[in-house]
Amino acid sequence: MKHIISVLVENHFGVLARVAGLFSARGFNIDSLAVGETQEPSISRMTVVVEGDMKVLDQIIKQLNKLVDVIKVQDISSEEHIARELVLIKVNCTTENRAEIMQIVSTFRAKVVDVSAGHATVEVTGPEGKVDALVELLNPYGIIEVVRTGLIALGRKSELVWKEGQAVNGKAKSKKTARKKATAKK
Amino acid sequence: MKHIISVLVENHFGVLARVAGLFSARGFNIDSLAVGETQEPSISRMTVVVEGDMKVLDQIIKQLNKLVDVIKVQDISSEEHIARELVLIKVNCTTENRAEIMQIVSTFRAKVVDVSAGHATVEVTGPEGKVDALVELLNPYGIIEVVRTGLIALGRKSELVWKEGQAVNGKAKSKKTARKKATAKK
Repeated sequence: MKHIISVLVENHFGVLARVAGLFSARGFNIDSLAVGETQEPSISRMTVVVEGDMKVLDQIIKQLNKLVDVIKVQDISSEEHIARELVLIKVNCTTENRAEIMQIVSTFRAKVVDVSAGHATVEVTGPEGKVDALVELLNPYGIIEVVRTGLIALGRKSELVWKEGQAVNGKAKSKKTARKKATAKK
Repeated sequence: MKHIISVLVENHFGVLARVAGLFSARGFNIDSLAVGETQEPSISRMTVVVEGDMKVLDQIIKQLNKLVDVIKVQDISSEEHIARELVLIKVNCTTENRAEIMQIVSTFRAKVVDVSAGHATVEVTGPEGKVDALVELLNPYGIIEVVRTGLIALGRKSELVWKEGQAVNGKAKSKKTARKKATAKK
């Protein structure tokens, strides 16, 4: 089963490598991953799509929560959610088949964002299935390049937020302090 | 300066962690990263946005090219390109300000993809600046959540492709073989 995992992290150096490493250390291949800033530039949100065993995934979520720079983790696919992906497709396009291609593009409410001699670049957003269907339909014309962002998702009824006014760095500090204390005890 | 780096990789286990690790090992903080499959499911394309020194970046590109699972690397920001990002924004929305919000949304050619009691979810695509402007305009209404895919990009005049009919795994194998030979020599 595919899982969409949202991870709120502090926008620190090396966090991405640590999170990606955690998945690969457990033998999970990441289907797609998208990371960007939230409304608070010091906090980023990662959306990871992985396929795998629920039991191991639970362990990964627990491990993620233990990372100093991780603020919150949510398996967003376990609830009602909105998931979208953005894809750019560069496809061969001649004067003969341009009208045909345009028709496919408009059926999918996609947009042609660039045209030059011999090819057109199409932008489409939607859930994974819609995007796959468009790629399949354009394939016979000769797809030159495809670049996908991977899914991003928001819960319909829940929010993945840090507490308002929460000292984000404070949390990390307190974790670090806790860790230091634990080390000191040793 | 911001650089958009496109990396074609074989869709193998752990590649993402290795690539992300390479950037963080050199002290580059990744602004955004998006990974998804290409038209060939065994090949993924990563788009990494980083800020930093051109000299160090050149070194990273060289290092990336040495990784077994990396097929091709391109600094796409060094040429004419199309860059887009997808963002979902959940914003507070009451019956009083709904019309105002809708007007902002339509000005940006964005779409409302979900409405429920008290909030609306907006989908917008575009270059980074446009998205930032919309987030800023919606901020006064109270943004609950923002999730961004990070930029993806295609060159306008060049393609980042593996050779048609190229045995992709063959390339990796030959690299591995070369490595084995080198080890044997030691």
